[in-house]
Amino acid sequence: MELGLVGLGRMGGNMRERIRAAGHTVVGYALDPDVTDVPTLAELVSRLSAPRAVWVMVPSGEPTRATIAELAELLEPGDVVVDGGNSRFTDDAKHAELLAAKNIGYVDCGVSGGVWGRENGYGLMVGGDASDVERLIPIFDALRPEGDRDEGFVHAGGVGAGHYAKMVHNGIEYGLMQAYAEGFELLEASDVVSDVEGVLKAWSKGTVVRSWLLDLLVDALEDDPGLSKLTGYVDDSGEGRWTVEEAIRLSVPAPVITAALFARFASRQDDSPAMRAVAALRQQFGGHAIRA
Amino acid sequence: MELGLVGLGRMGGNMRERIRAAGHTVVGYALDPDVTDVPTLAELVSRLSAPRAVWVMVPSGEPTRATIAELAELLEPGDVVVDGGNSRFTDDAKHAELLAAKNIGYVDCGVSGGVWGRENGYGLMVGGDASDVERLIPIFDALRPEGDRDEGFVHAGGVGAGHYAKMVHNGIEYGLMQAYAEGFELLEASDVVSDVEGVLKAWSKGTVVRSWLLDLLVDALEDDPGLSKLTGYVDDSGEGRWTVEEAIRLSVPAPVITAALFARFASRQDDSPAMRAVAALRQQFGGHAIRA
Amino acid sequence: MELGLVGLGRMGGNMRERIRAAGHTVVGYALDPDVTDVPTLAELVSRLSAPRAVWVMVPSGEPTRATIAELAELLEPGDVVVDGGNSRFTDDAKHAELLAAKNIGYVDCGVSGGVWGRENGYGLMVGGDASDVERLIPIFDALRPEGDRDEGFVHAGGVGAGHYAKMVHNGIEYGLMQAYAEGFELLEASDVVSDVEGVLKAWSKGTVVRSWLLDLLVDALEDDPGLSKLTGYVDDSGEGRWTVEEAIRLSVPAPVITAALFARFASRQDDSPAMRAVAALRQQFGGHAIRA
Amino acid sequence: MELGLVGLGRMGGNMRERIRAAGHTVVGYALDPDVTDVPTLAELVSRLSAPRAVWVMVPSGEPTRATIAELAELLEPGDVVVDGGNSRFTDDAKHAELLAAKNIGYVDCGVSGGVWGRENGYGLMVGGDASDVERLIPIFDALRPEGDRDEGFVHAGGVGAGHYAKMVHNGIEYGLMQAYAEGFELLEASDVVSDVEGVLKAWSKGTVVRSWLLDLLVDALEDDPGLSKLTGYVDDSGEGRWTVEEAIRLSVPAPVITAALFARFASRQDDSPAMRAVAALRQQFGGHAIRA
Repeated sequence: MELGLVGLGRMGGNMRERIRAAGHTVVGYALDPDVTDVPTLAELVSRLSAPRAVWVMVPSGEPTRATIAELAELLEPGDVVVDGGNSRFTDDAKHAELLAAKNIGYVDCGVSGGVWGRENGYGLMVGGDASDVERLIPIFDALRPEGDRDEGFVHAGGVGAGHYAKMVHNGIEYGLMQAYAEGFELLEASDVVSDVEGVLKAWSKGTVVRSWLLDLLVDALEDDPGLSKLTGYVDDSGEGRWTVEEAIRLSVPAPVITAALFARFASRQDDSPAMRAVAALRQQFGGHAIRA
Repeated sequence: MELGLVGLGRMGGNMRERIRAAGHTVVGYALDPDVTDVPTLAELVSRLSAPRAVWVMVPSGEPTRATIAELAELLEPGDVVVDGGNSRFTDDAKHAELLAAKNIGYVDCGVSGGVWGRENGYGLMVGGDASDVERLIPIFDALRPEGDRDEGFVHAGGVGAGHYAKMVHNGIEYGLMQAYAEGFELLEASDVVSDVEGVLKAWSKGTVVRSWLLDLLVDALEDDPGLSKLTGYVDDSGEGRWTVEEAIRLSVPAPVITAALFARFASRQDDSPAMRAVAALRQQFGGHAIRA
Repeated sequence: MELGLVGLGRMGGNMRERIRAAGHTVVGYALDPDVTDVPTLAELVSRLSAPRAVWVMVPSGEPTRATIAELAELLEPGDVVVDGGNSRFTDDAKHAELLAAKNIGYVDCGVSGGVWGRENGYGLMVGGDASDVERLIPIFDALRPEGDRDEGFVHAGGVGAGHYAKMVHNGIEYGLMQAYAEGFELLEASDVVSDVEGVLKAWSKGTVVRSWLLDLLVDALEDDPGLSKLTGYVDDSGEGRWTVEEAIRLSVPAPVITAALFARFASRQDDSPAMRAVAALRQQFGGHAIRA
Repeated sequence: MELGLVGLGRMGGNMRERIRAAGHTVVGYALDPDVTDVPTLAELVSRLSAPRAVWVMVPSGEPTRATIAELAELLEPGDVVVDGGNSRFTDDAKHAELLAAKNIGYVDCGVSGGVWGRENGYGLMVGGDASDVERLIPIFDALRPEGDRDEGFVHAGGVGAGHYAKMVHNGIEYGLMQAYAEGFELLEASDVVSDVEGVLKAWSKGTVVRSWLLDLLVDALEDDPGLSKLTGYVDDSGEGRWTVEEAIRLSVPAPVITAALFARFASRQDDSPAMRAVAALRQQFGGHAIRA
C-alpha cells in the first residue's frame, strides 16, 4: 500500500527503508532536502491516492501538534493519520478530535526498538478505532518483527492506548536499566569478582536476567571495558516522568521506576542543594566536618 | 567424566539428568530413597575414582556447611568439591579453608536458570583456583547452554566470586521483576489500555524491554489473565538481602534493588505498623479520620 | 479590623475564634445553619465595610473555585480575597486573574497547625502583592503564633507562593512522619528494646530528633500503646502528590518524599497487583511456592 | 558521686563539664595531655573509690573494644562500665560478657544532642541490668535535659538496648534531614517562592514540621543564605547503615531511611558507574547522545 511518512530522522528514516523493503510505497517528507522525497507536505499529500494514510514521526509536543494541524488542512475525509512519535497519551484525544472534525481518522502508535528496529523490526503498540487500525495492518506488519503478529504488535485500546502502553514500556525500561546498572556498579566496587565484563557476558544465556538490554550492555562493555569513556550523565525524554505522574494519579506505588527516574535527575547535578542542606545540619548539631 | 552430586531436589535432580544426557557419569545422593543413587554419602565417595569431583546442591547455610564438613572427612587429597547452591559468598572462604586443610580443592558456582535449566542449560558463575576450575570444565560445559562458552559460563575470580556474581545476578533479578510488576499494575489500574495481556505479549519481540522474564510473565498471564488466582505475597531466599548489605558495605547506592526488596517485605504484612504510626500522627494533628 | 470568613469547618471554625479573641470582627459563613453567622454569602459581604477582606477556607478544587467566582460577583473594586485552603498553587493565578478583572485583590495563604492552631497559633505562608498582604497583617498577626512575626509568618513571593510553600511543607511532613514511622516499626519488630514507648518519649528532649510530630506520636502511644486500635491505612489530601509532581517538573530528586507517598498508596491496597506479578514470575522460573 | 570518664573529645569534654556542674566528681582520661586529668587509665581507676563507675566515650569499634578490655584488667568486681559511644548494639553483648567474667557490670548508653548537649542536656537511651542502671541515675540525671526524667532518659531494655535505640534514633535522623533537604532543594529550584530562607524560618512556630532540626537549618541559612559556602558531600558514621541492615534482618520496609542513606553515598561520587551504564545502554539502543 501507499504511505506518507513525515519525519525522516533516526527513527523515520529507518522505518521508510523497512516499509519499502516489504514492498510498499513510501512518500517521505522531511525538512532536510537531502533526505526528503517531496519538497512540501502538500506535495506529499497530493502524491498519495485516497483514502490516504500518513504516518507522523516527528518530535513530540509542538512539532507533532503543528504537523497534525497542517495535515488536518491538507487531508480529506476518509484519510487517516498515525502519530508514531513519543507523544504523551493525553495529546492523542486532542489530535483525534481535531482530525475527526474533518472526518479524518487518527491512530496513535508507540514504536519501540531504537536504531535496531530497521533490522529486527519494531515493537508496535496501537490505539484507535478498529476500522482505522485495520487499514494500516499492512504497514504494521512491515514494521513489526517477523513471526506471530501478537508478539510484536497490539491494538491496545482506543485513542491514546498506544502511547499509554509505550509510556509504561519506557517506564519499565528505566527500571530495567537501573537494575542492571546498580548490579554493574556493585560488581565494579567489590574486589571479589575480578572479571566483571565476563560475568555480564556469562549472563547472556540460561540465566534469569538474560535480556536484550543485557546483550547491549555486554556489547558496550566489549567496546569500552569499565565504560571509562563515558560520563555518568543521563538525560530523559519524558516518558519516565509521565509514567510516574500516572502512578501518582492512579495511586499506584512505583518505587522502582521512580528511583530510576530520580537517579537520572541526580546524575545531572554537579552539586546537590539537598545534600548541602544535610551537610549544613550535621555541622550545626554535631560539629561534623563539611567540605567547602 | 564422573561426578558425585549431593542434593537431588528441584535443581539437583534436573542437573543430574542434563549432565548424564551429555554422556557423563553421575552418582547422586539425596535423603529421599526414591531419588538417591546410593544409600550414604560414604558410598557416593567410594563409587567415584580419584581424583574425585563432588557437586553439592543443597540449601545454603547449615545444610551446605554440614555436607561440606562431612565430605572433608570422606574425600582425599586431590579431590575437589563444588558448592553449586545459593550460599552467601562469605561462606566460601570458610568452606575452602576447611577443605584446603585436607588438600581438597573448592569451587563455588552460582547456578541460574531455575526449572528451565534442564532444557535450556544453566548460566554458571564460578569462583576458585584455575586448576580446580579447569578440571570441572566438562561438567560446566554439560550444564551451560549450548553455544559459546563465555555466554553462559564465567570463571569470575577466586573463591567466592561465583556466589558473589550470583548474588548480584539475583539482586538485579529483583529489580527487573519489580519494574515489570509496576508497569503491569499501572496498566491494570488505568482504563486507557483495554488489552493489558496483549500489550505485554506485544513487547515480546522488537522492543527494548524484551527479555526472558517478560516471556515468563506473558506465559503466566495466558494461564491466568489478571493473575487473579494469586495473592500478592512474595518470599525471598536471601540473595536480595545480601546484595543490599553489600551495597551498604561498599557505599554503593542501590535504590532500585532495595525498593524491590522492601516491596517484598511489605507484601507479607497484613497491616503495617509504620502506617499505623502515620495514621496516628494524622489523627493527632489534623483530626483526620482513621480506620480502626 | 473586619474579616469575612467563608468556611467554618475544623479549620475555619477554630480560626474564627482565634481571630475574634484577638479583638477583630469576624463575619462567618458556612452552609451549616448551626455555625454560620449569616444566611448567605451576599449577606456576609453586605455586613462588611469597604474595602472588605474575605478569607476563603473551604475544600480545595471546585468548592474554592465556586466560592471565589461567587465573591467576584459580590465584592467591589478595592476589596481583597484570601484563599487559606489547601489549593494547588497552580489554581492561584486563575483566581487572581478572575478577581483582578474586577479590581479585587487576591492573596493565597498556606495555613499549617491543624487542630492545635487555635491554641498554638497557625504557621502562615503567604503569596500576593505587597499592598494586599500589608492590609491583612492584623489578621495574620492574630492567627500566627505569638513571638516574632517571621517565625510563624512569611510573605513568600507573588501570587501562588503561599500555597507553593505550604505544598512543600506538606511534602516534608510526609517524609518526617514516615521516618518516625519506620523507626517505630523497627523498634517494635526487634526484641532488643523492651520499652518502645519509653524510647520515643525519651527522645522528647535533648535529642536530635525532637520535634512537635514526635511529641504527637508520644501522645498517641500513651493513648494506645502499640497503636493496636488503628489500621495501617493512610489517606492523602493531595499536597504530597503535588510536591512529587513539582519535583518531577523541576528535575529535583525527591526519594524520601516520594517513598512516603508510595507507602501511603500501598497502605490502601488489600492485595498488590505488582506483587502478584512478582509471585507469578518466581513461580514460573523457579517453581517457588505461591499463595492462592 | 564519682565518675571516671575515658575520652574527652567533642562529646566527652562537654559531658565532663555538665556532670561537674551538677556537683559530681569526674576524673577524666584522654590521650591529649592538655585535657586529661590523669596520665594513665590505671591512675584514673586508682583515683576512684569502689564500687567504681567508668564511662567510656571513645570512637566505636576498636578504640572502644581496647578501652573496655583494658578496664576489664584494671577494675574490680562490683565496678560498672558504661559505653556511651556510638557502638553497634551487637558489640554490647561481647563487652558485657568480657566484664561479667570479672563480675564487673556493663551498661550501654546512646547519647544524643551533639555539641548542644552541654547546654541543653543530652537525650539518653540506656541498656543493661536494672541494678547497674540504678547506680548510675545521678550521672544520667546530670546529663539529661531538665524536666521529667522520662522525657530525656529511658532504660530501654537489657544490654544492647541503649545502643539499639540510639541506632534507630540516628536512622530516623537521616530520614528527617533528607526530608527537609528535599523540600529546601525544591523551594530553591522553583521560581514561585522568592524568599526561601523566610519560608523555612516561618515554619519555626505553629507548623506541623517544626522541630529542632528545622531550627538548625534556619540558623545555617542565616549564616549562609543558599548554603553556597558548602559542598553537597555528606559522610556517615555508621548508624544509618546499621539501621538499614536491621531493617533487612527483620524484614521491615524502611524506604525513607534507606533513601536518605543512599543519597549520602551518591553525594560522595564524582561520577556514578551505574549512570555510566545507563548512558551506555541509551546510546546502544537509541543512539542517544552521551557525555564523554
